[in-house]
Amino acid sequence: MDIYSGHINKLIEELSRLPGVGAKSAQRLAFHIINMPRIEVEGIANAMLDAKDNVRYCKECFTLTDEEICPICRDQKRNHKVIMVVEQTRDMAAYEKTGKYDGVYHVLHGAISPMLGIGPGDIKLKELMIRLQGDVDEVIIATNSNLEGETTAMYISKMIKQAGIKVTRIASGVPVGGDLEYIDEVTLLRALDGRTEL
Amino acid sequence: MDIYSGHINKLIEELSRLPGVGAKSAQRLAFHIINMPRIEVEGIANAMLDAKDNVRYCKECFTLTDEEICPICRDQKRNHKVIMVVEQTRDMAAYEKTGKYDGVYHVLHGAISPMLGIGPGDIKLKELMIRLQGDVDEVIIATNSNLEGETTAMYISKMIKQAGIKVTRIASGVPVGGDLEYIDEVTLLRALDGRTEL
Repeated sequence: MDIYSGHINKLIEELSRLPGVGAKSAQRLAFHIINMPRIEVEGIANAMLDAKDNVRYCKECFTLTDEEICPICRDQKRNHKVIMVVEQTRDMAAYEKTGKYDGVYHVLHGAISPMLGIGPGDIKLKELMIRLQGDVDEVIIATNSNLEGETTAMYISKMIKQAGIKVTRIASGVPVGGDLEYIDEVTLLRALDGRTEL
Repeated sequence: MDIYSGHINKLIEELSRLPGVGAKSAQRLAFHIINMPRIEVEGIANAMLDAKDNVRYCKECFTLTDEEICPICRDQKRNHKVIMVVEQTRDMAAYEKTGKYDGVYHVLHGAISPMLGIGPGDIKLKELMIRLQGDVDEVIIATNSNLEGETTAMYISKMIKQAGIKVTRIASGVPVGGDLEYIDEVTLLRALDGRTEL
């Protein structure tokens, strides 16, 4: 990449570190940034540093937040006896968008993956067990429906059942609006296994 | 997007301004940035501002560069009598990667597009005409092979022919390694029209 000048090369190199940004798109982004008004470039640069400096884990549920305790954990109108366990803050955001869940969350920040060398100690599981010593009625496991998510769900359910707390798992099956002919076989079988009476 | 805290929202909003970054990928980038070491976030933020502050147009060919005159225009071993006209600095970079072109360039920073309201005065055409008052043997037009690129090529060739300078256009046809059956009809006809004797 010695075709471009030093500052352009440096910017392309830095942008390529971001996930999903390859050499070509880093190049496109770099030229866009150079052509933006300086005030807008400052806006992006400052937003990055501000977020990095000010965002931390909520002391209760470990979501990413600006304050010590996140707005959901502070909300006394929510049911603090029901905890939904998710892998990432964005998964929590996905359920919040539905507007129908009134319990609280616990963000693991990852999933158990022997392949990637991520064990139970590498995600916020210990922190979950500590929370369960309080007054909890139900733990809803909403990890992803892939190998890592299922492994994590299994591990957590075993751990929690010993503590005598009700554990549930969100349903897996055909997405609403999905055409059966385009759904993979594993999902079809999962939907069959999980069928409910009408 | 009130699901996230202020700093996260602000970062997602700023990142969505970038081309090709939608709401979902801005979210993914934001969480990645928050989880990066601060020194790396600083690296990206500074590279943006440094590039914005230090990169300017080359006074000769108008490519983006750190110096007053870019390395290609300064290079006395190159043939300054042959000028390749391209739309963007990255197009110039694409030809430089071939390593086979030894002339110089002229970067228009755009193409004529009546649809987008971009006229001849909005790209570096006047600057090209001024360069042509010097000692120039040939102008190779290497604008893109789309409507805007072709319009621009036509406009430039008319302008330059009046000045009595040789004008050529890079060939348009089937890409090397391309299967005829997957090539669109316009390209196939273009390739036929542009056939050369063996």
